[in-house]
Amino acid sequence: MSPHADRLAALRDQLDADGLDGFVVPLTDEHMSEYVGAYARRLAWLTGFEGSAGSALVLAREAAIFTDGRYTLQVREQVDGAAWHYVDVLATSLTAWLAARATEGARVGYDPWLHTAAWVRDASAALAARGANLVAVDRNPVDAVWTDRPLPSPARLTVHPDDRAGRSSAEKRAAIADWLAEEGADALVLSALDSIAWTLNVRGGDVDHTPVALAYAIVDADGSIDLFVAPEKVDEAVRRHLGNAVRVHDRTAFAGALGNYAGKRVVADPERAVAAIATGLEMGGATVLARRDPVVLAKARKNATEIAGHRAASVRDGAALTRFLKWCEETLPAGSETELSAAARLRACREATGLLLDTSFDTISATGAHGASPHYRVTEASNARIEPGQLYLVDSGGQYADGTTDVTRVVPVDEPTPEMRDRFTRVLRGHIAIAMAVFPDGTSGGQLDSFARRPLWEAGLDFAHGTGHGVGAYLAVHEGPQRIAKPNYPGGGAAEPLVAGMIISNEPGYYKAGEYGIRIENLVLVVPREIAGADGLMLAFETLTFAPIERRLIEPALLTEAERAWLDDYHGKVLDLLGPLLDPAERAWLLAKCAPIGG
Amino acid sequence: MSPHADRLAALRDQLDADGLDGFVVPLTDEHMSEYVGAYARRLAWLTGFEGSAGSALVLAREAAIFTDGRYTLQVREQVDGAAWHYVDVLATSLTAWLAARATEGARVGYDPWLHTAAWVRDASAALAARGANLVAVDRNPVDAVWTDRPLPSPARLTVHPDDRAGRSSAEKRAAIADWLAEEGADALVLSALDSIAWTLNVRGGDVDHTPVALAYAIVDADGSIDLFVAPEKVDEAVRRHLGNAVRVHDRTAFAGALGNYAGKRVVADPERAVAAIATGLEMGGATVLARRDPVVLAKARKNATEIAGHRAASVRDGAALTRFLKWCEETLPAGSETELSAAARLRACREATGLLLDTSFDTISATGAHGASPHYRVTEASNARIEPGQLYLVDSGGQYADGTTDVTRVVPVDEPTPEMRDRFTRVLRGHIAIAMAVFPDGTSGGQLDSFARRPLWEAGLDFAHGTGHGVGAYLAVHEGPQRIAKPNYPGGGAAEPLVAGMIISNEPGYYKAGEYGIRIENLVLVVPREIAGADGLMLAFETLTFAPIERRLIEPALLTEAERAWLDDYHGKVLDLLGPLLDPAERAWLLAKCAPIGG
Repeated sequence: MSPHADRLAALRDQLDADGLDGFVVPLTDEHMSEYVGAYARRLAWLTGFEGSAGSALVLAREAAIFTDGRYTLQVREQVDGAAWHYVDVLATSLTAWLAARATEGARVGYDPWLHTAAWVRDASAALAARGANLVAVDRNPVDAVWTDRPLPSPARLTVHPDDRAGRSSAEKRAAIADWLAEEGADALVLSALDSIAWTLNVRGGDVDHTPVALAYAIVDADGSIDLFVAPEKVDEAVRRHLGNAVRVHDRTAFAGALGNYAGKRVVADPERAVAAIATGLEMGGATVLARRDPVVLAKARKNATEIAGHRAASVRDGAALTRFLKWCEETLPAGSETELSAAARLRACREATGLLLDTSFDTISATGAHGASPHYRVTEASNARIEPGQLYLVDSGGQYADGTTDVTRVVPVDEPTPEMRDRFTRVLRGHIAIAMAVFPDGTSGGQLDSFARRPLWEAGLDFAHGTGHGVGAYLAVHEGPQRIAKPNYPGGGAAEPLVAGMIISNEPGYYKAGEYGIRIENLVLVVPREIAGADGLMLAFETLTFAPIERRLIEPALLTEAERAWLDDYHGKVLDLLGPLLDPAERAWLLAKCAPIGG
Repeated sequence: MSPHADRLAALRDQLDADGLDGFVVPLTDEHMSEYVGAYARRLAWLTGFEGSAGSALVLAREAAIFTDGRYTLQVREQVDGAAWHYVDVLATSLTAWLAARATEGARVGYDPWLHTAAWVRDASAALAARGANLVAVDRNPVDAVWTDRPLPSPARLTVHPDDRAGRSSAEKRAAIADWLAEEGADALVLSALDSIAWTLNVRGGDVDHTPVALAYAIVDADGSIDLFVAPEKVDEAVRRHLGNAVRVHDRTAFAGALGNYAGKRVVADPERAVAAIATGLEMGGATVLARRDPVVLAKARKNATEIAGHRAASVRDGAALTRFLKWCEETLPAGSETELSAAARLRACREATGLLLDTSFDTISATGAHGASPHYRVTEASNARIEPGQLYLVDSGGQYADGTTDVTRVVPVDEPTPEMRDRFTRVLRGHIAIAMAVFPDGTSGGQLDSFARRPLWEAGLDFAHGTGHGVGAYLAVHEGPQRIAKPNYPGGGAAEPLVAGMIISNEPGYYKAGEYGIRIENLVLVVPREIAGADGLMLAFETLTFAPIERRLIEPALLTEAERAWLDDYHGKVLDLLGPLLDPAERAWLLAKCAPIGG
């Protein structure tokens, strides 16, 4: 029996002992995080699934794992189909699947620290309609059987200095206090880890690749904060930085502290605070106001300091990536490298900058058919040799103190096929359509998404992921609230108006199952665009990421004149910005890669 | 005092007598219709507003009229700003505006036959939060003071024969019965007038330009129907056509009949059935199932017979419009025609086909600045002379037994300015982008809308209306459920997936307040598009409307090669299809209008 089969059996025994007929295992942690600490990776431990979005349901005789289109292939490779049903969550939600199987009187457990109140309401109602019950557990039964569960990380907090943040924590807290006054509220619970890090201008090391610390915070009407964090994480320098308006408590005191707001109006974000927070506040006699965490939008609108930092990080990162791309072109055709060795080489290129703090996520180093899984994660088990004739896709980024990067390029190993060139050029046309988009104030990413898909649609093709996600400033590489995606995108955000200062990725792709994957990703900044005679405020994107886009994969005749002009202009900037950071041989190589595309 | 001031004063006296502090006056009728019979035009009678979307609120000291961007100019021209606040309904809903003014204990009336249950719920909750009450009235106070209110129309029903409908009423009713079985429901209330007409294959004459009859219908699980309609409307031929599975009752018996479903599960569409229907069913002991009227989607997917009928109507209508456009070009520069005389001329051109049953809406015949009101309606009072230097915009359509048309063209009176040519060409590029769109199954109009706006956005411009609406088959010229529009479009429909067989308008525009309006409108059909190697079902549009697009307003250098090719191909079809219906002089004129655009 595989370890995962053992674990599933152990969990079923535990459910039996706990008097439960089923249990829901989401991917998230107590902060509704997308990426979670090792201690919270229950879904991966139980099922083997390593993707960044999904959930599972275990019943006595059936179990199912719910993922979206990005993971259609990956979930089938990583999770045992004999033990688990694969369910496309866009077609059938976990709640719907569960309700269809619930029997009269059944008790299905959930951990109230891992779900939003809205999810609990919906799932409870769906079960109640079948005469079944959704039951909050006191102790997560997965944890009970996960005997070698990692301990929470001991990483310490670090100060994110004002000259990088662009705004002091005191200013940020005063702005929250103003907002609380406008809302007529007495306090705000911050549970999203990046909201806390941003507000306090601190960073942490508790989640791989995302510099946040496990903590909760409650902001009072006067802008002072109760911060709940393991005390050993806070050294003297951090304590001085936080100042006396931040009261530090042990993280374990948070649940109890929710009971201290009797008669108060306390804001909790219904999408970001778990059900247990609202319940704790209500049990203590507080009135819960469901409002979006006000930090979310403030954090998404980068200030001038953060933008300048990102530009510096981006050029540094682009030069490192360019060195790697040159190495790929020279080395891969020999067929002696693997996905892991290439990823290590790329990491070394970034480390050579002397400023890399971490990669911003697990590098997607995917050759051939592996590239067709948009979120493929290479492991020792999956590691493939990079062979001539393949496309090698590399999606990666760096965490630097001045910015978070995220970029995808594709390298043809030897001569690409005409089909690969056609598909790559269509993806590039979609990428350029987003890069060149001009749109009125109030426009959402959902209104721009089709621009990225049109050239693929014209060939009867599409890609099963969003076109763009927000990116933090030395914070999470996936950051809300905005997104460029189809309107029904499961993570939401497609309806959020884009505003100046937002950084968002532009990453259309194309995936041919069993053969190859293509994705071209740059980060872009939302900027105001002056146009003579405009009827109102217009916005546009400024591309922030610089690295050559592989000309051997481009069919110039398929590009319009405007698209060729964009590409030549982009490559001109790549040369101007990266050239000074490269040695003469690298510069000569880049010069050839950035020559006008012709047509 | 103007008549409208008198009417507002009289209504306020009546509210006082009825013990009400305010009253809501929507535009709709008891069927949630967009276009309503004369007897139901309470909003126009009270305020003077002639637009097709809006509502009013009368309080003791304030009154407000709520309209969207299409009517920003028009409402200011037609409604007295001294007596009425103009409110942009997208920025502030009637409910929000009302709640902000409601005082403790206030009683605000509404007519439960003119609002959905959802509206009543929302408005009641908003008022309750202020300690005020929303009160259903038994008798509409507007009707009480509208002394010369028109009687309901006496028009008779007519048979819409199977060879035009493409499907017999018996088949349609059997399909509804199957649907009721799937839903586990006992009956379906149909209150949308076009749903009833479509289901029974009858047409009526109770609403200007929309061939429907005032009626209600309840479909039973066996596919038989109780039809509630004024008995004098049903002659022997119609009664034979309806057959014995359709039981005819007086329309006045409908409210009482809702009480006959004790213990039954009855479907009522929450968007299309008024609150009084759900209340009547519930008071009688029925369980109301909130489901979309299943006729809505069935009716939107035109069958082969309806499509063939539309093609015939469209060519006939296009030839009539082409004659009119030739007349415009030859006659308007003399400056002796008016908006009314031109509209009469166009009507005469359509009547000369011998098959026109009605126009499909009040012709928008708008010259110069009037064109900047997208839904301008010419009256004796507003009628303007068409002068050299202006753009003349004409948006019109015909009702024919085989199809409903809707088309907009713009005629320059003498030489247009470079700005007009630039703007027209941008609108044309948006129109062509929709016409040429290819998209995967499941795509909604909201995902395509930005294609129509992109060329305007690039110049800092936009238009404040949707890009496209569904159109009926000898039925309503505005038909749901689909729409091409921004995601937050007030009428909804932008999220509805497009499916093969839907007819939808493609009508981007541009409006320069005080100067001119531009709109280019054709109807298009959603069709499957075969593409070699496609990953799944792909859809596209086939243009159904044929009339020349004014070349004097096109700047060919601004078009891409693909756009020029589309235009030349379109004009080639215009010539091929309309040529045989024209006389030699008309044909020669059209030949020149349809010559390749060059560039």
